[in-house]
Amino acid sequence: MPLPSEFHEIAKRVNNWGRWGAADEIGTLNLITGAVVRAAAATVTTGRRIPLALPLRQDGVQTGMIPGRVNPLHTMVAVNWEMFGPDTVATSDDTVTMGLQAGTHWDALPHVSHSGKIYNGRPADSITTHGRAAFSGMEKAGPVVSRGVLLDVARARGAERLDSGHIVTPEDLDAAEELAGVTVRAGDIVLVRTGQIQQYLAGDREAYAFPSPGLSIRTPEWFHARDVAAVANDTLTFEAFPPEFENLWLPVHALDLVEMGMLQGQNWNLEELSEACAEEKRYAFLLSATPEPFTGGTGAPVAPVAIL
Amino acid sequence: MPLPSEFHEIAKRVNNWGRWGAADEIGTLNLITGAVVRAAAATVTTGRRIPLALPLRQDGVQTGMIPGRVNPLHTMVAVNWEMFGPDTVATSDDTVTMGLQAGTHWDALPHVSHSGKIYNGRPADSITTHGRAAFSGMEKAGPVVSRGVLLDVARARGAERLDSGHIVTPEDLDAAEELAGVTVRAGDIVLVRTGQIQQYLAGDREAYAFPSPGLSIRTPEWFHARDVAAVANDTLTFEAFPPEFENLWLPVHALDLVEMGMLQGQNWNLEELSEACAEEKRYAFLLSATPEPFTGGTGAPVAPVAIL
Amino acid sequence: MPLPSEFHEIAKRVNNWGRWGAADEIGTLNLITGAVVRAAAATVTTGRRIPLALPLRQDGVQTGMIPGRVNPLHTMVAVNWEMFGPDTVATSDDTVTMGLQAGTHWDALPHVSHSGKIYNGRPADSITTHGRAAFSGMEKAGPVVSRGVLLDVARARGAERLDSGHIVTPEDLDAAEELAGVTVRAGDIVLVRTGQIQQYLAGDREAYAFPSPGLSIRTPEWFHARDVAAVANDTLTFEAFPPEFENLWLPVHALDLVEMGMLQGQNWNLEELSEACAEEKRYAFLLSATPEPFTGGTGAPVAPVAIL
Amino acid sequence: MPLPSEFHEIAKRVNNWGRWGAADEIGTLNLITGAVVRAAAATVTTGRRIPLALPLRQDGVQTGMIPGRVNPLHTMVAVNWEMFGPDTVATSDDTVTMGLQAGTHWDALPHVSHSGKIYNGRPADSITTHGRAAFSGMEKAGPVVSRGVLLDVARARGAERLDSGHIVTPEDLDAAEELAGVTVRAGDIVLVRTGQIQQYLAGDREAYAFPSPGLSIRTPEWFHARDVAAVANDTLTFEAFPPEFENLWLPVHALDLVEMGMLQGQNWNLEELSEACAEEKRYAFLLSATPEPFTGGTGAPVAPVAIL
Repeated sequence: MPLPSEFHEIAKRVNNWGRWGAADEIGTLNLITGAVVRAAAATVTTGRRIPLALPLRQDGVQTGMIPGRVNPLHTMVAVNWEMFGPDTVATSDDTVTMGLQAGTHWDALPHVSHSGKIYNGRPADSITTHGRAAFSGMEKAGPVVSRGVLLDVARARGAERLDSGHIVTPEDLDAAEELAGVTVRAGDIVLVRTGQIQQYLAGDREAYAFPSPGLSIRTPEWFHARDVAAVANDTLTFEAFPPEFENLWLPVHALDLVEMGMLQGQNWNLEELSEACAEEKRYAFLLSATPEPFTGGTGAPVAPVAIL
Repeated sequence: MPLPSEFHEIAKRVNNWGRWGAADEIGTLNLITGAVVRAAAATVTTGRRIPLALPLRQDGVQTGMIPGRVNPLHTMVAVNWEMFGPDTVATSDDTVTMGLQAGTHWDALPHVSHSGKIYNGRPADSITTHGRAAFSGMEKAGPVVSRGVLLDVARARGAERLDSGHIVTPEDLDAAEELAGVTVRAGDIVLVRTGQIQQYLAGDREAYAFPSPGLSIRTPEWFHARDVAAVANDTLTFEAFPPEFENLWLPVHALDLVEMGMLQGQNWNLEELSEACAEEKRYAFLLSATPEPFTGGTGAPVAPVAIL
Repeated sequence: MPLPSEFHEIAKRVNNWGRWGAADEIGTLNLITGAVVRAAAATVTTGRRIPLALPLRQDGVQTGMIPGRVNPLHTMVAVNWEMFGPDTVATSDDTVTMGLQAGTHWDALPHVSHSGKIYNGRPADSITTHGRAAFSGMEKAGPVVSRGVLLDVARARGAERLDSGHIVTPEDLDAAEELAGVTVRAGDIVLVRTGQIQQYLAGDREAYAFPSPGLSIRTPEWFHARDVAAVANDTLTFEAFPPEFENLWLPVHALDLVEMGMLQGQNWNLEELSEACAEEKRYAFLLSATPEPFTGGTGAPVAPVAIL
Repeated sequence: MPLPSEFHEIAKRVNNWGRWGAADEIGTLNLITGAVVRAAAATVTTGRRIPLALPLRQDGVQTGMIPGRVNPLHTMVAVNWEMFGPDTVATSDDTVTMGLQAGTHWDALPHVSHSGKIYNGRPADSITTHGRAAFSGMEKAGPVVSRGVLLDVARARGAERLDSGHIVTPEDLDAAEELAGVTVRAGDIVLVRTGQIQQYLAGDREAYAFPSPGLSIRTPEWFHARDVAAVANDTLTFEAFPPEFENLWLPVHALDLVEMGMLQGQNWNLEELSEACAEEKRYAFLLSATPEPFTGGTGAPVAPVAIL
């Protein structure tokens, strides 16, 4: 079932192909300049650091709903091993098998394709099993550090968490921006809080996964208008599931990643940050969120930190 | 072969057990206070961000010398998969198997034990195959953000890289501190550059691994005297290999991790940072280096960034 | 909660420690002699080959109930990769991560220990994280080929499958032996059919896993009296779950593996074999069931075949 | 560089597409009939069982020469874990990550493709990252049990092992057949011994991998003329490496797997079998060599056994 014309119209409006040259592989990360980072560092007033990653463990957020996206299987290859003989210093070593998109992660730009293309008009078949992503792989992103802005949609709506069917609209983002008292500007990384991750934190990963609130197909234009550098939220699917429009699957992914060339983050735990921002009445901070640089990865784990 | 009395004497002098309470699990990370972080953020002047992680890929730094510490085997579980039918948005997904200590990483405190103990006097057998590290596992570290100071020992000695047999002494650190024009202080994260990683970057992972320059058994006292929060360098083994004293294996690991409770980083690529610091004539910066929070992990990958 | 005296009394009666010498690592596999195998080969009359392994795939029998025992995550490292250039022969290659006990498998003798011991009185701590099983590891078993006898307990009871609470007793085995018209003898490998695996084959892995029929604590004496070489069945847990006696966990494992030194097989698909045996009115056959020889493995996948 | 016309001529002569119907997925395994298996079972005279698999361990035969084909990383997820409380029966469990073609294995028919096709004329792109091999995957093979015939080319030439540059020709096979005193016939599984695996067994995996003796492009016609069901040998590459003809890579793979639809086995340890056959002056036996049934696998580990 081909993508509808409405999708293609929005796609045209938010498209960034060629904007940073035909050779560009990082999209809206280009918007994070030295000036942006200097200003972000200047927001640090207390030095408080808030972690946004979920702990990595076998009972992580994945339910099996997405085939192959496995929770971390973390095993030991040595426990107090006296490699050099008895009564010497003993070592312990670990190994993991996991989906790169299994926990708190960034989607790299080639994570989705549509109509045979990935970001900047490159052919989707530049991703191969053997070579992985030839363009815009996760290792290309480099350091991801900028001003972070929390758009606490749940709080702005007076809800502990959004209903599982809630679709986050541009109007929701406006209201959260107003609550924040911050104007989102070029190079910002926007964190959209739905509260949905409370379900996982309370032990119900099935409820967390589906149904889930998420971003509307109308939000990419909002992000594009403000030249946001990246967006993350606290859901498994990023956009609403079941989808906003019947038989239109992953349109927000396609607009953000393919058309705009903008990183998307999922499974970010924004609960402690939400409390801190409300307490301190400030919603902008220094955000450090560099993905693990997997060569050709179409996603990667990240351990983001908000520094207030 | 039991650890010699000289080791135990140093151990006594640098020991931090109980310093932050019997329940403490993070050791010298306690030294990173809000004030330290605020001061670190204030060092940002250009907004330049320098990545310190090696790309993660199958031809990584591991040679097989350390059993079970495998380079990333990164495979795709989907490539442009039209999960929802033909002509829909297609997704690509990745999986990895890797040693948590295989690439650019932090050693967590329980990575080594000696005399049956880990940091803060806890029993080494609190690490188990099934449960991994019960105390001081990698997820306990939380955000690792502080002032970073580059001690460019190679540059201070006028060498492109240190000889493979060079043992980095407190005097080397003093000289590098003088070159840096910075006084290392409480809560700093110190990055010690030997230049050894050039061997890997030039394609010779065997030469990189062994023999290797590294830190002397005398350096923990230097770090302890200054209340350093963590130390990383650009070698596979952190300390010199072959070891500084015959039959005394991993004494620096034992002093840093077990006695002081101080994170150690390995395989950090400090080459670009060295150039930048020399150019800008400044060696202190904001360092963001939060490990992936593997629950009970005795180490974890990290994608550190220096923000100048 | 220590093992009850009743357990220890049975243990004494079925114990084989020392029977094949203090150095023995294969237990009842010693009972498979050349004569046994010749006689087994002589049972082949049609040449029909019936596979007893479940296909290996991500939606295998594991539900997450047993931590770390993961279903196969089977990924491609190359798909039609033209390693040697365009228009050459292209190759596809696969990788898997899986629990060795995840699918159709044998438990090796050290898979369980009790009272600090494994088979033949060796210390349980001879199994280590780094070295795995020093004694009786899966690679020691060697070829496992013998006469197989199907004891079709479900059919003997006139049931399609046993109730989920049914505990298979010696009397059940007697009745199935009578149905089979075969006398179980020294060196035989006995396959006990409950029909439970139908639940998995019908798509309900939760129901397959638990609750499950399985072997009674009284069956090891039955096997010991006949000098059976190995026993496999068509359940996840081998013995009944929930257990036959409250707070007495895995007693059959302990008796079979530790005391007798007898391999146990689980998740064997005996459905087609059951049909064939009933049709052909014969229940003895040549069984070929050599485990994958994982060095130090406490279990291994096996692809058993009955040859009629 | 396209395949030369000489290749295509041989391909025509050995092609089996359509021979067992357009729907066939198992190729020459069709030649193993009940009668073949009955006759194979009748060869059993001593009941001696000889294992042909290499133990699976981290220092296996893979050198890194073939990207992604990793030796087994075998870790424990539990060691003597008292899952049910203190003093209960304790369990040990294992996990592995490995290339399906890493050790002693069968290549499934879709392991290679040429000219866009796999066996029986199916499109090569029926193999996908997400779905793996849609046709002729390893799970389709079913039980592989037949008469095995050892063609001991090394012994027939009076060599302990063939020179690393030796290319095994039809004339070599004739000579080995004469030594064997057996006429290879329809449905046989032929094991071709070069002795090359001695290099690995002596600890030199690099020498084992390359250069390597192997089968000539002329051997597929020899196998085809006799309607052999499958062929395995004791090398890493099966065919000679470097290749017999410059710039003609893997032609034997293409002829055996794609054109004939005949399984190929590699890394089979034929040393003990060679001794046994020479001692007993018999070279035919019952061979049981069922691959682990990985769904859609383009190869799989196997633990073959010769029963004499």
